[in-house]
Amino acid sequence: MVTDKIILGIDPGTTIMGFGLIGIIKGQMSLIQMHELQLSKYADHYLKLKQIYKRTTEIIDVHKPDEIAIEAPFFGKNVQSMLKLGRAQGVAMAAGLNREIPITEYSPKKIKMAITGNGNASKVQVAKMLQGLLKIKELPKNLDATDGLAAAVCHFYNHGKLEGGKKYTGWGAFVKQNPEKLNS
Amino acid sequence: MVTDKIILGIDPGTTIMGFGLIGIIKGQMSLIQMHELQLSKYADHYLKLKQIYKRTTEIIDVHKPDEIAIEAPFFGKNVQSMLKLGRAQGVAMAAGLNREIPITEYSPKKIKMAITGNGNASKVQVAKMLQGLLKIKELPKNLDATDGLAAAVCHFYNHGKLEGGKKYTGWGAFVKQNPEKLNS
Repeated sequence: MVTDKIILGIDPGTTIMGFGLIGIIKGQMSLIQMHELQLSKYADHYLKLKQIYKRTTEIIDVHKPDEIAIEAPFFGKNVQSMLKLGRAQGVAMAAGLNREIPITEYSPKKIKMAITGNGNASKVQVAKMLQGLLKIKELPKNLDATDGLAAAVCHFYNHGKLEGGKKYTGWGAFVKQNPEKLNS
Repeated sequence: MVTDKIILGIDPGTTIMGFGLIGIIKGQMSLIQMHELQLSKYADHYLKLKQIYKRTTEIIDVHKPDEIAIEAPFFGKNVQSMLKLGRAQGVAMAAGLNREIPITEYSPKKIKMAITGNGNASKVQVAKMLQGLLKIKELPKNLDATDGLAAAVCHFYNHGKLEGGKKYTGWGAFVKQNPEKLNS
């Protein structure tokens, strides 16, 4: 059967990067692949970025996703960690931009809400729900790959199933939709 | 005469992005081009990133720089602005990574120090010094392009002229060399 659409979900981090790919056939989701990119072994921040760019590009070139969904936290502990996270996100997004693939951002809360109906659900709750939805036999040890997958499934729900779901197409839209979340 | 090396300096920002290109011939610098990318007209953060990636890639493909120097502030006002700045940096860096061009980061203080001998020099002081060094007839109105140029000149000084100058090759090296600057 021909896959109508492939969605790549990415959970960008500077320690582990999670990727999840789903295929949509006649409105039904199925798991294609989950992948974790371990970054802690690269001591140098620049090498990490290089790996993120290389691996994201490889995944895009192998699986040719039609759309990319990215989990994008807008808040962090301190300015250093946010700068590093921003770079990791930017490099992953550039890999998509380079192949002209549309990218949609979702906040962690929005993703949890889409999957479990609870914006404050735990990683394990999200993973268990995905396991049922996508008939995953065994969950990976680390749940970063399932977080990537969760972004992809959230994207599918927002465009395919849920009417009137908020669509974050970028920072501007996020700010407009969440004015209360920004520092003045 | 054949140019021995071309250095692209970038000052990444989310409002204006500055680019400066210098050529090295027999150990002497000369100005190739300065360029400013105005980003304020793009309301959407994602469109900005797309423009940064596109324009940086274009400049790389036209001028074929051998090395890239990037001005990288490690501190900012708040986590949101640092995330946005991190993304802008990440996207610009990815354009370089994509063409396998080595990237070196320099803090604003280090760049000012290299150009003027004073780490707290003003934008105007840096621009005036560059005007003399590179025989620039007229300085641009905005000084973001000269900031990009300053990064390129700082890189030239650090590799060519100054013995024992600190070389920041990434976050890891920066942290090691500046432990006092990081929050615990």
